[in-house]
Amino acid sequence: MVAMGGGPELPSKTASKEKELLLAVLPWPRAQCQKGIDALEKEFGHLEVQHYYSHFENGKVTVDDIPEGLPAKASYIATLFWLPKTADDIPKTKLIQFFSAGTNHVDKHPIYTDSKIPLCSANGVHGPQIAEWVVMMDLVHSHNYTTLYDLQKKQEWNQRIGMNVSDRVGKRVAILGYGSIGRQVARVAKAMGMDVIAYTASPRKTEESKRDNGYIVPGTGDPDGSLPSAWYSGTDKEDLHNFLKQEIDLLVIGVPLTKYTTHLLSTDEFELLHKSNPRGTYIANIARGPIIDQKALIKALETKQIRGAALDVTDPEPLPKDDPLWTAPNVLITPHVSGASDAYAERAFQVLAENIRRERSGRELVNEVNRDRGY
Amino acid sequence: MVAMGGGPELPSKTASKEKELLLAVLPWPRAQCQKGIDALEKEFGHLEVQHYYSHFENGKVTVDDIPEGLPAKASYIATLFWLPKTADDIPKTKLIQFFSAGTNHVDKHPIYTDSKIPLCSANGVHGPQIAEWVVMMDLVHSHNYTTLYDLQKKQEWNQRIGMNVSDRVGKRVAILGYGSIGRQVARVAKAMGMDVIAYTASPRKTEESKRDNGYIVPGTGDPDGSLPSAWYSGTDKEDLHNFLKQEIDLLVIGVPLTKYTTHLLSTDEFELLHKSNPRGTYIANIARGPIIDQKALIKALETKQIRGAALDVTDPEPLPKDDPLWTAPNVLITPHVSGASDAYAERAFQVLAENIRRERSGRELVNEVNRDRGY
Repeated sequence: MVAMGGGPELPSKTASKEKELLLAVLPWPRAQCQKGIDALEKEFGHLEVQHYYSHFENGKVTVDDIPEGLPAKASYIATLFWLPKTADDIPKTKLIQFFSAGTNHVDKHPIYTDSKIPLCSANGVHGPQIAEWVVMMDLVHSHNYTTLYDLQKKQEWNQRIGMNVSDRVGKRVAILGYGSIGRQVARVAKAMGMDVIAYTASPRKTEESKRDNGYIVPGTGDPDGSLPSAWYSGTDKEDLHNFLKQEIDLLVIGVPLTKYTTHLLSTDEFELLHKSNPRGTYIANIARGPIIDQKALIKALETKQIRGAALDVTDPEPLPKDDPLWTAPNVLITPHVSGASDAYAERAFQVLAENIRRERSGRELVNEVNRDRGY
Repeated sequence: MVAMGGGPELPSKTASKEKELLLAVLPWPRAQCQKGIDALEKEFGHLEVQHYYSHFENGKVTVDDIPEGLPAKASYIATLFWLPKTADDIPKTKLIQFFSAGTNHVDKHPIYTDSKIPLCSANGVHGPQIAEWVVMMDLVHSHNYTTLYDLQKKQEWNQRIGMNVSDRVGKRVAILGYGSIGRQVARVAKAMGMDVIAYTASPRKTEESKRDNGYIVPGTGDPDGSLPSAWYSGTDKEDLHNFLKQEIDLLVIGVPLTKYTTHLLSTDEFELLHKSNPRGTYIANIARGPIIDQKALIKALETKQIRGAALDVTDPEPLPKDDPLWTAPNVLITPHVSGASDAYAERAFQVLAENIRRERSGRELVNEVNRDRGY
């Protein structure tokens, strides 16, 4: 690292005339990144972007050949998977912007464990599309759309089948993990006339603590945390159970997978949901498969303890062809795609731009990862 | 008619002690109406509700036997299809509350054509569920959900198929006919980050004219008409075409069927939509089938002039089994069910309660049908 000690690093006259290098190693070809790159080079006069294509498939990362010594010149790095071997390879780097929502996939890497280079995530860029997935699945279920779709394929007009609809007005959505995705679910659900309740590990009693300080796609989310009619919190079973007793129509799972959240929802929890709302809770999981005890889920579906489940994540993934989850009653499964959006790269470039802006003016970065906390 | 002339009819002391009869002839058994009936009898001290079951199927109305002379005692009538033969049969009736969104189905009836008994519709009670249908279908299309559903049925995990998603942030929804349904679509679309533009026959330049004066399900809609970023109006082709040129991603058809709106959307209009937005406009029709020239629609779908269509209404209905519309590319069809909701009767009873309240205090009724205008 250069310029350690002696107070904050101020740009010298020389430095401000030299171009700074942004090394972007991303899973999109240059053409797809061009708009984002152009915007950066236009806004930041002394910035030069060099783009390399990386690709991740079947657990393997392949990267275009990056010239030896180039990372050593980089002031900024934008990446999804790739990292140089150690921090010694990037002595000038002031910021590594990940284009992923989290950084768990690199948390054993020496740059994560042994360096102090700020790491930022792209948390927030998934909010809109994943919230849309949740809303869509809840509607597909409550409006019996899959049955209507099957009818269309048979070219059959049958009104009775579509009549048993329960619209969303006055229903309650409970959001377990009120992050960027949950906040956007809340915004749309509220517009549909639903009541919103939230759950977070730490209590959010003050206005300041309710705020979303991460990146927010403009015009979406719940920036000041004002949408929930009630906000629950805690880290033990009792707290969680108190939340699950609130007569929930739609339960959205948006917590990260940790040893504490593994099988967070199991037999006891499905029983509680059922007792509190005999109409049946619909569960949407867009977080990680193992947060739900999948055997217990199948049983709760079969016994109609819960109304149904929409799962974008399963345990394991890919879900094996003969897994009984595929055909459990009232379950809808998609293959971990809810985060997909053609606006993804564009939004991640916006997070990066904001962070270069903040780094250059000495402000706190957005989405900076707390290495101890893990996100 | 009693008490015609001589100023407004004021309740006499005698009248206020006598019970007034509300004759409810509705397509739900008494048990399903009980909650609504109880609420009325509780709120209005001198009201007695008598319920008769009517049923409509295959174009025929069947009604429980209503005792002769009973209608003559009714101060209020709540109905969906049934009406007495003439206004002479209901000399005391001060209000007929229809439980349907419109009253076109009775506009040849002598009570409609020859009496002045106030007729009120239940317009507004469909807003939430039909808006949900529109949002669901737009998401099902943009998130390729039908393909993902087909994959689940094959128990196949294939991420690539779900990756081509275009989320709704920054997209434009254009609402042709900004009534109670369109306003609720606007509310949800705005929450998803979309831009909303509106079209009405008459211009809405003033704050007063932008308001929704009909029944609004609490917590939904756009009561003051503030959601659209632009509001277009007019009754000729040029006005409509100007609206269709606004680079529309989702076009929602919510105008009533009249001779002017028959085939409102045809070859020229699909061409305009395509020129203005080559990504392709998605069309949702929740109004009436003949508003779209269906042959032209099929052609526009086949030539990819438009992106796709979600149709809850077709021309004719039921859509014949061999109609080419069923299998046109990117078309999703449901059998005229978007208005279904288990909250329907409850909401219609709320409109009725509001109107009894207004009638008794001499205020303007909500949703009163203008017989000349037809709604």
